[in-house]
Amino acid sequence: MTVISLMTDYGIKDGTVGVVKGVIWGICPTAQISDLSHMVQAQNIREAAYIIARSVPYFPKGSIHMVVVDPGVGTKRRPMAARIGDWFYVGPDNGTISGLLDRAEFSGWKTQFVELNRIRYWLPVISFVFHGRDIFSPVAAHLANGVPIGDLGTPFNDPVRIDLPKPVRTENSWRGEIIYIDHFGNISTNIGAEHLDTALERKESVTVKLSDTEITGMVNTFGERPAGEVVALMSSTGNLGVAVVNGSAERVLGVRMGDEILVTY
Amino acid sequence: MTVISLMTDYGIKDGTVGVVKGVIWGICPTAQISDLSHMVQAQNIREAAYIIARSVPYFPKGSIHMVVVDPGVGTKRRPMAARIGDWFYVGPDNGTISGLLDRAEFSGWKTQFVELNRIRYWLPVISFVFHGRDIFSPVAAHLANGVPIGDLGTPFNDPVRIDLPKPVRTENSWRGEIIYIDHFGNISTNIGAEHLDTALERKESVTVKLSDTEITGMVNTFGERPAGEVVALMSSTGNLGVAVVNGSAERVLGVRMGDEILVTY
Amino acid sequence: MTVISLMTDYGIKDGTVGVVKGVIWGICPTAQISDLSHMVQAQNIREAAYIIARSVPYFPKGSIHMVVVDPGVGTKRRPMAARIGDWFYVGPDNGTISGLLDRAEFSGWKTQFVELNRIRYWLPVISFVFHGRDIFSPVAAHLANGVPIGDLGTPFNDPVRIDLPKPVRTENSWRGEIIYIDHFGNISTNIGAEHLDTALERKESVTVKLSDTEITGMVNTFGERPAGEVVALMSSTGNLGVAVVNGSAERVLGVRMGDEILVTY
Repeated sequence: MTVISLMTDYGIKDGTVGVVKGVIWGICPTAQISDLSHMVQAQNIREAAYIIARSVPYFPKGSIHMVVVDPGVGTKRRPMAARIGDWFYVGPDNGTISGLLDRAEFSGWKTQFVELNRIRYWLPVISFVFHGRDIFSPVAAHLANGVPIGDLGTPFNDPVRIDLPKPVRTENSWRGEIIYIDHFGNISTNIGAEHLDTALERKESVTVKLSDTEITGMVNTFGERPAGEVVALMSSTGNLGVAVVNGSAERVLGVRMGDEILVTY
Repeated sequence: MTVISLMTDYGIKDGTVGVVKGVIWGICPTAQISDLSHMVQAQNIREAAYIIARSVPYFPKGSIHMVVVDPGVGTKRRPMAARIGDWFYVGPDNGTISGLLDRAEFSGWKTQFVELNRIRYWLPVISFVFHGRDIFSPVAAHLANGVPIGDLGTPFNDPVRIDLPKPVRTENSWRGEIIYIDHFGNISTNIGAEHLDTALERKESVTVKLSDTEITGMVNTFGERPAGEVVALMSSTGNLGVAVVNGSAERVLGVRMGDEILVTY
Repeated sequence: MTVISLMTDYGIKDGTVGVVKGVIWGICPTAQISDLSHMVQAQNIREAAYIIARSVPYFPKGSIHMVVVDPGVGTKRRPMAARIGDWFYVGPDNGTISGLLDRAEFSGWKTQFVELNRIRYWLPVISFVFHGRDIFSPVAAHLANGVPIGDLGTPFNDPVRIDLPKPVRTENSWRGEIIYIDHFGNISTNIGAEHLDTALERKESVTVKLSDTEITGMVNTFGERPAGEVVALMSSTGNLGVAVVNGSAERVLGVRMGDEILVTY
């Protein structure tokens, strides 16, 4: 019962995600399919890259992750499958896996890339505008059935990478940026535990600045402070975050993706 | 592992869809359940009819499609099950399957209809207002378990049909209308490949007019043109569509369902 | 194939629900997972308590219901598992099961509670802020695999209860309040069939007042009246409700959760 996760910018009202599952189960009836998100901002590859990088490590080994945020559908951009460590990716070669490849390099995971071009693993008719249904779903299902990744296409070694913003070191501080804002309005940044390192042992001595707000000290979790207070804390995926207890940091602070954040310690 | 798809206007916040799955798995523990959409506009049978007609052919043979957009719940309208070609429908007899029946006639698929009235296939207690839970879910689950459709009720031959708008032929043109606008703001029309026929071999000679906009020529896919450009193209289900590259045609053109579109070639 | 239902306030855009499923299927690959809702208002335990109480009885015996609306995540609040009648709960001990416990007392269901503290049933690394992923998902999966609830932690007998509002009896009437408004804008109240009792046999003699509106008589279902009419009826879970036929009672009447409703008969 192989697990396949799906992430797209298709939304949830048009039936497109349901059709993708119909195609998958027509080929691999036992697949367990997890919807990671279908609310990725339209054509926002960066957002998809961020979510997939932090999510994949929690899935079972051998699981397959189909991500289709694909402004280039039907053009010359390569359709691809990849093995990245213990997991598989299926989708366009457009930088979606950049964050996963950063992790692979950091962790020494093996990688393998193929350009999908064996049409016997596709639907019989291929539209120009819905490769999620016509190419990526059947390929993911065949992978789940045990078809070796090497059978799906031609090997290559230069997957498209997009530059994900890296924090900058200054004396006694890191300057980073907001890379994600979640459903609650909680803010995630590109400053990780690996940057803060031993500063995390003296959380009371850390100062976080963003927008016009300065937060002194860090907490472990929301409930340590009263509702409405702005707090800095480490997120569940090891990134520095900013939140408003029982509220929305996005709304209270008026911030957005890309805004600068400064951590001093 | 029979596939059951669900489409409703229930939304996703109230737990109603989750309960439907609980009922199904209580009767058929192995069913694979695909959410087609729960964001159909409330009571909009026409929208449901459109989505189900274009989606079902991508599902495996024998799959069961439960659609509950049911303003007449608890009144005299018939609860029904149908076999349409290789697929099954379960839901109210209110026109939801009109588009599928058009396809069945076009393609020569066989059909069979029964009025659901064998209460041994229902939940023990039937509410007046939630037949999705009390009648249609258990019936779909019993079908998935292999109960013959003929055992579920009494045959009939006059399912309710709603008139789905058809395009009108004029000299060198088709006049149709917008029948769907998707999550991205892409527009679908009721003008299909079967109407445009050989005109699709000379895409540069096709002109599409809607609202105050005139589009000369058609493209195969979005990425052929720069972001922001209005393009005409064939959708993934073979309908003439209009889109804005990396944008929303709905918003840019200010159009809505039912608006007229004219194709000249 | 044990059924696990999930209800959270996580929303559907961040991948968090998908990760929870990845964790569950890594431990129990055959689990059938039903999303009850991920749109519970942030930190609104009362809303979660209402939805879970009315939903659980429709799930198969032995099913597991993980509910994570958890403003106290990472603080001293107890993580717990419970057996309530034929079903299991996994989540924080914060009152989420109050409505289920009311039902259990009313129906004579047996209950059993354990504080989760056996870390061999958790993920290896526990964050402060995402116990849904790190504690509750793996525990639910181990329960689904057949681990006895008593093995998961230490028994206790004083789960947190929150007071869910009860209607008040006056002469010939009940005074209650709005406890839920659904996707359609239909209103549910805390006045149940058990309060109205034989008055439900003379529906024409019942008068319902809320906001500035007085409704004379009750209907069985929406379709008995023309679109736009305000009607009173019993909901699918046996509560007195108010609806606008093919419309939104919430919008038309301008009401909200907690507003008073008076039923006279």
